[in-house]
Amino acid sequence: GVLGSGDFARSLAVRLVRSGFKVVVGSRNPKRKASLFPAEAEVTFQAEAVKKADVIFVAIFREHYSTLCDLADVLVGKILVDVSNNTEINYHKESNAEYLASLFPACTVVKGFNVISAWTLQSGARDGNKQVLICSNNQEAKRIVAEIAQAMGFTPVDMGCMSSACEIENIPLRLLPAWKIPIFLALGLFLCFFTYNLIRQVIHPYIREQKNKLYKIPIEVVNTTLPCVSYVMLSLVYLPGVLAACSQLYYGTKYRRFPDWLDQWLQHRKQIGLLSFFCAALHAVYSLCLPMRRSHRYLLIDTAVKQAVEKKMTIWVEEEVWRMEIYISVGIIALGLLSLLAITSLPSIANSLNWREFSFIQ
Amino acid sequence: GVLGSGDFARSLAVRLVRSGFKVVVGSRNPKRKASLFPAEAEVTFQAEAVKKADVIFVAIFREHYSTLCDLADVLVGKILVDVSNNTEINYHKESNAEYLASLFPACTVVKGFNVISAWTLQSGARDGNKQVLICSNNQEAKRIVAEIAQAMGFTPVDMGCMSSACEIENIPLRLLPAWKIPIFLALGLFLCFFTYNLIRQVIHPYIREQKNKLYKIPIEVVNTTLPCVSYVMLSLVYLPGVLAACSQLYYGTKYRRFPDWLDQWLQHRKQIGLLSFFCAALHAVYSLCLPMRRSHRYLLIDTAVKQAVEKKMTIWVEEEVWRMEIYISVGIIALGLLSLLAITSLPSIANSLNWREFSFIQ
Amino acid sequence: GVLGSGDFARSLAVRLVRSGFKVVVGSRNPKRKASLFPAEAEVTFQAEAVKKADVIFVAIFREHYSTLCDLADVLVGKILVDVSNNTEINYHKESNAEYLASLFPACTVVKGFNVISAWTLQSGARDGNKQVLICSNNQEAKRIVAEIAQAMGFTPVDMGCMSSACEIENIPLRLLPAWKIPIFLALGLFLCFFTYNLIRQVIHPYIREQKNKLYKIPIEVVNTTLPCVSYVMLSLVYLPGVLAACSQLYYGTKYRRFPDWLDQWLQHRKQIGLLSFFCAALHAVYSLCLPMRRSHRYLLIDTAVKQAVEKKMTIWVEEEVWRMEIYISVGIIALGLLSLLAITSLPSIANSLNWREFSFIQ
Repeated sequence: GVLGSGDFARSLAVRLVRSGFKVVVGSRNPKRKASLFPAEAEVTFQAEAVKKADVIFVAIFREHYSTLCDLADVLVGKILVDVSNNTEINYHKESNAEYLASLFPACTVVKGFNVISAWTLQSGARDGNKQVLICSNNQEAKRIVAEIAQAMGFTPVDMGCMSSACEIENIPLRLLPAWKIPIFLALGLFLCFFTYNLIRQVIHPYIREQKNKLYKIPIEVVNTTLPCVSYVMLSLVYLPGVLAACSQLYYGTKYRRFPDWLDQWLQHRKQIGLLSFFCAALHAVYSLCLPMRRSHRYLLIDTAVKQAVEKKMTIWVEEEVWRMEIYISVGIIALGLLSLLAITSLPSIANSLNWREFSFIQ
Repeated sequence: GVLGSGDFARSLAVRLVRSGFKVVVGSRNPKRKASLFPAEAEVTFQAEAVKKADVIFVAIFREHYSTLCDLADVLVGKILVDVSNNTEINYHKESNAEYLASLFPACTVVKGFNVISAWTLQSGARDGNKQVLICSNNQEAKRIVAEIAQAMGFTPVDMGCMSSACEIENIPLRLLPAWKIPIFLALGLFLCFFTYNLIRQVIHPYIREQKNKLYKIPIEVVNTTLPCVSYVMLSLVYLPGVLAACSQLYYGTKYRRFPDWLDQWLQHRKQIGLLSFFCAALHAVYSLCLPMRRSHRYLLIDTAVKQAVEKKMTIWVEEEVWRMEIYISVGIIALGLLSLLAITSLPSIANSLNWREFSFIQ
Repeated sequence: GVLGSGDFARSLAVRLVRSGFKVVVGSRNPKRKASLFPAEAEVTFQAEAVKKADVIFVAIFREHYSTLCDLADVLVGKILVDVSNNTEINYHKESNAEYLASLFPACTVVKGFNVISAWTLQSGARDGNKQVLICSNNQEAKRIVAEIAQAMGFTPVDMGCMSSACEIENIPLRLLPAWKIPIFLALGLFLCFFTYNLIRQVIHPYIREQKNKLYKIPIEVVNTTLPCVSYVMLSLVYLPGVLAACSQLYYGTKYRRFPDWLDQWLQHRKQIGLLSFFCAALHAVYSLCLPMRRSHRYLLIDTAVKQAVEKKMTIWVEEEVWRMEIYISVGIIALGLLSLLAITSLPSIANSLNWREFSFIQ
């Protein structure tokens, strides 16, 4: 059974019908809404629908849960599946599923399917293994809903009892939480080093020698800033592991919890590392672009003309040649190794490596 | 039971044996064929094999289905699994599975396993979650076959009743259908812009000033063409969304189906976007190669020599310097952002994002 | 039931509790160890724990299996799950699971969960479909353990009977076995071509004309070496397929096994191809870096000055210009096509292609 006639209710009905289930939809205006649902689904009044079904998907907003109170009698003993989402993290004090359970104490409430979008429901399970997180205080109800999810082509994941509902409801609302701190860290570092390089390469020569080198800002200053950020970030990836090892040695046990800041840091290592790689890759692209610039061309011609006019020939400085050859060659090797790290952090690659292989590459 | 002795029949037998099933193989020449099958599988005459098995995989070509008619009596009540594929899309009027069902009305026919190659069957399920699409008019038979698929390490996906058989049989024959239109679109755009740039950069100077600039064709003309294609493709990614929104606003409902052309367009956005990124990336590589060319070197030396001979010194044009610095710097940032979009379109990354994160990045 | 109190035992208990199981932990010192386990798990003496549980995870080292012999009486008829790993491949003559089975002939032993790390157990199934390889001589016990694995959010894979235990135990110990030969091959080829190019570009000019061109070693010599390695590797990807086809034509059958060396070679094609792509990509980056070098700049200015002093103007060699334009342009296209091959070899992309699409792209 499906209660509701919104997008999600329709997609749910479509998918259930396609997965071979008999579906009855409960609506307050079945005649007008029937055309929205697939022909195989029976659309009827809410009370009718509830009577005919054992498992009922409640696809209506939390705000309207109380309108179901009229159905309390027919709902006794049924399994209610709460599929709702909130619009803000922790907006309500108790989760939607717990609220529904408190309204209908005679029903068994299961939280689930909220992490699946209406679009995924309709387009089918062909595009990968989508997980459906499920929780409930009743093991049997949880098992039934998990089987329905499996039959619909999803991978049910048992999240334990009802107290996890809040966590499940927050999942579709999270916005890259693991990336926030690393991104602000990278931006902060970039700003610091950028200011330093700006003063050193543009402002200082301007004040001391009145030379206008403002044209260096968009590329050269950025390009000297990026590797600094990349290096510091890379060291921040390996530092917390060392600190954790020291802490374990100091306390003589590995079962003591790390302080919160260290724990957080350890968990953000992957993101910090990827940002370090991103900065390194940008640095490579910027460096490769240097000889393409007009200013490079002008400076080159300028030097050539000066040399020619003064009839000087000896401009080959062995040390500078070697320094540059080695800089570039080591830079390429470093970028190649970092790329390898970045590739092995792709979920599909990481899943195919065992622990020994992963730590070998790292 | 397995009927047939081709590659697929053998791989199927190997995998079933490894998954702990008792396998009996029916062949018209069991003595000669026995050596091809694993030792644990019993190879016998077709009628014998059918009698001993409840679920029978029919691993023979559609053309030979009629040869099974002699077995009609012993086949009564058995579940036949049609694993066949065609060589051309919609080559036959009815699907192989429906044809088999029409030949043996006393059997239950289930379509399945045709999307799995003999190679995947043999090499095992270790390399990822391969899906087995299953359809049948009989729920119970479908359930049994789905359980066999699960035990073999595959993920069964219920595709509903027998009328889906045709769709399932076409899946292994499809050849990147979603890419056809975007690729022809990109090629068409490339041709148009290439012709325009060829006339502008090579033919026009040749006719007006008799200058031979043919050497520009392989790199410079291509390099001015690529970003044009990329820009137009990128705008074609975002345009249909706007049109769809307008259509919804105009009709005042989101339940009205879009016209077919708009629907098609909306579904090809990902491919159009990836081709746009591909063109942008090629443009970046071509641009980076510019200073490597002989012609660049010659032009540079030429200018230097002219300047030196004429003893002119002032060649620094502030405006040109700035224009180039900003072009390159904005280009790098744009490519970086497009890369991010391309990376999040990898299936394994996309699956790990929720809807809110995905739309934030887009 | 869980026997043991190490990292793995704790993580196992945590995950089992979270998946809704009742867990009893057996320890030789339950009082001291109780604090390490989640509150929902009952920690008691080993004999007590064994009595209360039907399925017992033996999370202790192989060396201590014999200490369980005191429990032989209470263990009768129980299912023992061997989760142990070795520290070296094939260190013991018989697998840990077979050794456990020989110690307790009255128990049913199932091998499994050893490919899962303690970390994966604790962090949960949310990060992808981790497979649990299971084997046992008892189908029913295997089914029960497979169901537990499924309930814990893993994908159980049936690996057949106990003789596979050794293979399963070696999986967490393997270290990129498929990469060893291709990497040594690439290094060998690199060394050969590097020596040849070193002699040709550095040593020969030094001996014949006393020219010091040592600065070419880090970049130019490496850069001429990489494409040679890449080409040879790429041809080694396609050669074994041709040899295999010839062998099949010669023997007139495709059921004859290939000789071992050819079989090995065929199986390493993907890795050889990826290394070929890696070399090609490095070659591209090295080439793009050429104009960034000091030496390039010096040579350019030198030529310009010489030309200016000698007042020569005609340095445009049409043939050289065209050769370079075509080199670069073909190089970019080749790298683009190789990238496509490399991308389709990512597991998540490869899984979404059918056989026809994959062979079309290849």
